[in-house]
Amino acid sequence: MNQIDCLERLVNKFSSLPGVGKKTAQRYAYFLLTQSADDVQDFAAAMIDAKQTIHYCKVCGNFTDKEVCSICARPNKEPVVCVVKEPKDVTALEKVRDFNGSFHVLHGVINPLENKGPNDINIKSLLTRIGEEGIKEVIVATNPDVEGEATAIYIANLLKPLGVTVTRLAQGVSMGSELEYTDAVTLSRALSNRKQI
Amino acid sequence: MNQIDCLERLVNKFSSLPGVGKKTAQRYAYFLLTQSADDVQDFAAAMIDAKQTIHYCKVCGNFTDKEVCSICARPNKEPVVCVVKEPKDVTALEKVRDFNGSFHVLHGVINPLENKGPNDINIKSLLTRIGEEGIKEVIVATNPDVEGEATAIYIANLLKPLGVTVTRLAQGVSMGSELEYTDAVTLSRALSNRKQI
Repeated sequence: MNQIDCLERLVNKFSSLPGVGKKTAQRYAYFLLTQSADDVQDFAAAMIDAKQTIHYCKVCGNFTDKEVCSICARPNKEPVVCVVKEPKDVTALEKVRDFNGSFHVLHGVINPLENKGPNDINIKSLLTRIGEEGIKEVIVATNPDVEGEATAIYIANLLKPLGVTVTRLAQGVSMGSELEYTDAVTLSRALSNRKQI
Repeated sequence: MNQIDCLERLVNKFSSLPGVGKKTAQRYAYFLLTQSADDVQDFAAAMIDAKQTIHYCKVCGNFTDKEVCSICARPNKEPVVCVVKEPKDVTALEKVRDFNGSFHVLHGVINPLENKGPNDINIKSLLTRIGEEGIKEVIVATNPDVEGEATAIYIANLLKPLGVTVTRLAQGVSMGSELEYTDAVTLSRALSNRKQI
């Protein structure tokens, strides 16, 4: 259209968000322009505020606005650590009310194609925690894909000498899914991990 | 998760964008937190900057950072005005290179259900323009839905006494679409508006 530089800039910023293309970014930008100046100011302030206030928990690596996140600060936790790839995985697992352990965020997985080795993710502090917190079990809850599996195996090999039980999330058919549309690998895992009822 | 107030606030802000639910908003917020402080600052500045700089063109009502937008300022325009609902419709129509007229943005359509009458949209200045600019034809390019059609008819009745030709975008099957999946109303319009080849 009529090339407005600052509009272009805003559209480009929105396009940088995950999963947002040029058209969606434009939609967001146009929407913002129809909002009041105060609302836009508020939105911008919320961004800066969040970025300034939120950092990684020094224990588990999850997002927090305190030194130690509220999950790590919980009293009477079980000595179980659930290792995940990203903070959003913590959000997902926190919805499962019956887990009372703590989390450990790797901030990535081992991925040779992207030149990401064990030293590029948050594994070292996991080792420290196991000693300090007397962790008995580590549940590796990385995604069930190639990189997630590789990272899980790496962590298992690393921790076994320390006498910690290392487990992995069960794999099988998801609740509410239909067998007809379930992929062969998932079905094969579901079959081999079958349980007596 | 661990209720971080400023994160909640940012997620809520993102949720206010059109078509963005809680989960997508969370994804955007988490992504922003992984960006550098400078990048986030830049994004926020782009928002405020765009909102401060961009306003409506005093002639056509489109977004612009000048007094008159670049389309209205073009020399040797045809005396044809294309009336649209929103600025993003101008963007869409500007991609059609062979239209050399100007635009007029209504900023809405007549919608009794939302209590929006003719006085709530940018129609008055269209009447002024027709006299001042010697407009010969008005193409009403509001969306082909109930409100868009009603607005088109209202504008046509308003302008006919002024001796202006009022036209409407042609309706028919879209390029590349499949007849099988085209709705009955569209097919009926396409049939009744058929052209000799």
